Amino acid sequence: MARFFVSSRELEAEQIFLTGENAQHMKVLRLKPGEEVLLCDGAGREARCVLEGEGLRVLERRASAAEAAVAVSVYLAFPKADKLEHVIQKATELGAVEIVAFPTSRCVSRPDEKSLQKKLDRWQKIALSAAGQSGRGVIPKVLVLGSYAEALRRAAQADLGLLFYENEHAVTLKMALSEKPYRSVALLTGPEGGLSEEEVAQAREAGLTVCTLGRRILRCETAPLCALSAVMYDAGEF
Amino acid sequence: MARFFVSSRELEAEQIFLTGENAQHMKVLRLKPGEEVLLCDGAGREARCVLEGEGLRVLERRASAAEAAVAVSVYLAFPKADKLEHVIQKATELGAVEIVAFPTSRCVSRPDEKSLQKKLDRWQKIALSAAGQSGRGVIPKVLVLGSYAEALRRAAQADLGLLFYENEHAVTLKMALSEKPYRSVALLTGPEGGLSEEEVAQAREAGLTVCTLGRRILRCETAPLCALSAVMYDAGEF
Repeated sequence: MARFFVSSRELEAEQIFLTGENAQHMKVLRLKPGEEVLLCDGAGREARCVLEGEGLRVLERRASAAEAAVAVSVYLAFPKADKLEHVIQKATELGAVEIVAFPTSRCVSRPDEKSLQKKLDRWQKIALSAAGQSGRGVIPKVLVLGSYAEALRRAAQADLGLLFYENEHAVTLKMALSEKPYRSVALLTGPEGGLSEEEVAQAREAGLTVCTLGRRILRCETAPLCALSAVMYDAGEF
Repeated sequence: MARFFVSSRELEAEQIFLTGENAQHMKVLRLKPGEEVLLCDGAGREARCVLEGEGLRVLERRASAAEAAVAVSVYLAFPKADKLEHVIQKATELGAVEIVAFPTSRCVSRPDEKSLQKKLDRWQKIALSAAGQSGRGVIPKVLVLGSYAEALRRAAQADLGLLFYENEHAVTLKMALSEKPYRSVALLTGPEGGLSEEEVAQAREAGLTVCTLGRRILRCETAPLCALSAVMYDAGEF
């Protein structure tokens, strides 16, 4: 079934007329009256519709069937641009609800203020495109924070806030996830050069649990996707 | 500690002299007598050594500390070249012992016989480099099989042979892994265009368990890494 992302307001209308890129896309697909399409508001609601004349009549509105019960936010220290784009695409496929980039002391790369809005637009488009291809009902939000302290404060608000550190050997992700039931998880990972000991101590003070992703050193773009895959598995997604 | 891959024969010598690229690398590092280095044979054995004059004296030989207790083989249908290289690099970081590529009916890309050996050399080098960077004690083998049937026969020899299919919704990876204790797992995933129903049926006949990776459609280069991460997590690696 063809899928289109529309606004939440459009989704609630009685009769829906696709506009802009969606209208063009529908033309390309040469859909015929009577055919069904799926509209998603990118925030977890969707509507099964049937094509009638120029418009779409809603058959059923429902919560998106493709979204995980657990809300996972991926927090990563700014890596080089191509790696950030890679993580945005893959974390979207894997079901994250947010991808949050933040600076740390050893980040070699950080976008300047001037180009930031343009880059955010580009990153949000990557998330939109990956959400469409993977059949997501939610388009993950891509956020940029101004400081590491802000990232810690924000991540600590999740049911479980976890920071992965290559020099932590005792506490595994499995131990951290079995601490308590969780509906939201924040996963923090460092940049190419790693986190400093001081930054790890700050994370503990902020209430995050510091844990290991195993005995192999993962690249900064691999670690968040490995952790996200494991959390989704632990949460019973597959 | 600096790490070097050497042959198994070199590793067993009483006094070890690094040669070729290793000798050059040691020069670049300006190691001084008395400093320790770690030699790995890339097959799971390693030796802690101390630099004495031009050679290395072995202090301790041991099984590599960075290898998982479970042997995971990643089988993937030939994707486009850049995706295969991506999977080789990431699966090596994540701890796979083998990366095995095979053809299927819907593969859009398959190397021709003539260029295959050159490509295999290149792929094996990617695994070697990723093994070094991630601190692996084993360099995963990159293999190319001639047919899908051969991939099924080979994968079925693992304790658990699993095939991931987007139209399977009932059997999860968690169910498949809890069937029985396992020391070796083969994870099979399809190409960009997916596996055909016939190919999925063939896999069942060969004794593989068909299971889901969740409700989101993963790209062909994302699925094997997601599954590998989850298996390592399930096996207690992190």
